[in-house]
Amino acid sequence: MTTDSHAHLDEDPAFALHRGGKLNVRSSVQVRDHDDLALAYTPGVARVCGAIADNSELVDTYTWKSGVVAVVTDGSAVLGLGDIGPEASLPVMEGKSLLFTEFAGINSVPIALSCREVDDIVETVARMAPSFGGINLEDISAPRCFEIEQRLRERLDIPVFHDDQHGTAIVALAALRNAARVTGRSLGDLRAVVSGAGASGIAVTKMLVAGGIGDIAVADSKGLIYAGRGGLTPAKDELAEISNKSGLTGSIETALAGADVFIGLSAGEVSEEIVATMADNAIICAMANPNPEVHPDVARKYASVVATGRSDFPNQINNVLAFPGVFKGALEVRAADITESMKMAAANALADLVGDDLAPDYIIPSSFDTRVVPAVAEAVAQQARAEGVARS
Amino acid sequence: MTTDSHAHLDEDPAFALHRGGKLNVRSSVQVRDHDDLALAYTPGVARVCGAIADNSELVDTYTWKSGVVAVVTDGSAVLGLGDIGPEASLPVMEGKSLLFTEFAGINSVPIALSCREVDDIVETVARMAPSFGGINLEDISAPRCFEIEQRLRERLDIPVFHDDQHGTAIVALAALRNAARVTGRSLGDLRAVVSGAGASGIAVTKMLVAGGIGDIAVADSKGLIYAGRGGLTPAKDELAEISNKSGLTGSIETALAGADVFIGLSAGEVSEEIVATMADNAIICAMANPNPEVHPDVARKYASVVATGRSDFPNQINNVLAFPGVFKGALEVRAADITESMKMAAANALADLVGDDLAPDYIIPSSFDTRVVPAVAEAVAQQARAEGVARS
Repeated sequence: MTTDSHAHLDEDPAFALHRGGKLNVRSSVQVRDHDDLALAYTPGVARVCGAIADNSELVDTYTWKSGVVAVVTDGSAVLGLGDIGPEASLPVMEGKSLLFTEFAGINSVPIALSCREVDDIVETVARMAPSFGGINLEDISAPRCFEIEQRLRERLDIPVFHDDQHGTAIVALAALRNAARVTGRSLGDLRAVVSGAGASGIAVTKMLVAGGIGDIAVADSKGLIYAGRGGLTPAKDELAEISNKSGLTGSIETALAGADVFIGLSAGEVSEEIVATMADNAIICAMANPNPEVHPDVARKYASVVATGRSDFPNQINNVLAFPGVFKGALEVRAADITESMKMAAANALADLVGDDLAPDYIIPSSFDTRVVPAVAEAVAQQARAEGVARS
Repeated sequence: MTTDSHAHLDEDPAFALHRGGKLNVRSSVQVRDHDDLALAYTPGVARVCGAIADNSELVDTYTWKSGVVAVVTDGSAVLGLGDIGPEASLPVMEGKSLLFTEFAGINSVPIALSCREVDDIVETVARMAPSFGGINLEDISAPRCFEIEQRLRERLDIPVFHDDQHGTAIVALAALRNAARVTGRSLGDLRAVVSGAGASGIAVTKMLVAGGIGDIAVADSKGLIYAGRGGLTPAKDELAEISNKSGLTGSIETALAGADVFIGLSAGEVSEEIVATMADNAIICAMANPNPEVHPDVARKYASVVATGRSDFPNQINNVLAFPGVFKGALEVRAADITESMKMAAANALADLVGDDLAPDYIIPSSFDTRVVPAVAEAVAQQARAEGVARS
């Protein structure tokens, strides 16, 4: 079957745009003649190789390694599509690499793996790590993603960052900090409810706890998570330890009654009746895409601040506000890790950009605000230096 | 230590050119606003992912997969430098990727692995294969490179090509075919001696045998290889079966006396006295770089045709004459493999380009001859179609 037999698909502009892929690798040096070749390739290249063999830190200066991020997935939890495997996940991974280059000028390569075991993914990424300056884990299902990230962070001396967790968490914390401010409160005044205990739900909860939220309860498909609930995974068990101070049990509806904040990270719809039971001045972040857990038009009837994951409503919680700047900052100082404090610094820098323009419909900058990446990168780099994670 | 502490190295123009690396990944689509983002990333990308999940062959049309080649090494046999490890090998791998893009417009990504076991390399490459249209193995030491290539060819449905073997073999066969012609002979008239039984020596020998050379003997560091010599590796054992028909034993000098062709792939120097013992009308291909086994000025005193691996002498045997076109042809028809016949077709196409301009100092086109890549690609694609390896 030839390529053209799929031409009808291109009537959808998304398919037309994807034909042939979205990335190119190009030379950054000229190769016009034998003299050029003798510098970029043999025999000149041998001198550079020899120098790196003698002093391994030169690899960061004389190759592209320190500026290239691998976007690594196994295709097990892709967008709202779920487990579609490595090949079908490639358009998203290419898209992620495209965002790295377009938003932060960072070289990035999509790597979709055909293996699923935690050991295999960790081993494979560790083996290819000499070629990369950072690893962005993407769309790997929970709970495997937690162990994979943790083990790779321990093992590698380059930043490893699971964006579905930490990118979302950074932007959500920044948004919530400003949502509290615009409604005359601080994070410590708020009681929040998170719908969804997958990778992003767990990471957002941990980050909000670290950021000083008053209280926060998380619900998965079986209801609220509390210390002592049977059959919890280790990740949810940890969550139970740090969240739900008041020990709520039962369904998410129990927790939402009188809650200040709803954070949707599950695509599970929440009815208008339930939304109506939230406290005055409520904050609703319904981030499921393309269908928010609460439609913004409904949410606005009961909440003072409404955010979604969509670009066609105000206050878009979009990971692209975080990961390009986080990696740019980390790579610039050759950070060995992306620590909790570096993520916190990124969230604060993002929130601070809103400044005096703060309004219920402007709690977070636009994805295309050109101040975002430099501000986040600077904050991350500074924090890396402050805690000794930077290597240059 | 900061980047600038290495500034003195940049007095060597090879270092200055390598600063920051030689490759960039760039977007091939525009992302100016939310509308663009909605096609290149969410939500539009989800439709493309879904279509590939339903029909896996669409991955070749709607991602960059089918046009991107991984240059994979373990850094164990890099140029003349030997085992310098993955990081120090990166400048060569980047250079190779650069040649893919500059000469054939093929996207290519350098992947230097930190593992050494055959099983580990095979497994790692197989796991990342969903992301790539082809695998170029590079600078992996013999004999592991033979098994790695064989097992990956069997396992994967994309082309796997160890350039150190087959690139060199293709160009050497093309050169020798024309060297025979310019001296009024055919390959079958020639008795050749190969110095070096590493990856390239073995591959060149096999290809010359397949191309119909009269006889050929190979010497390694212990002397000539013959059936029955003790302690041969499986690869050399196979070589003994197909070469050295007359059963020569002893040192390479024994074989060179009266030989028509010398092919140097070892960096082991051959003295003028020995060169003087070769037959009239000798052909000398001294490919060690930067120091040919026989200096061209010496070789010319005794041989009718002299080729080297260097660009500053006539008749440069350079892999860049083969691999860009071979992969271009294979990728264009989505070949599942690069077969022996496809390599033979590449060698013949390369030799034919010389045409009526054939002369002792012009047995092979220049690396910068723009006819080379299209001609090789066309021949490879045609042969792939002819033997049913093509998938489009």
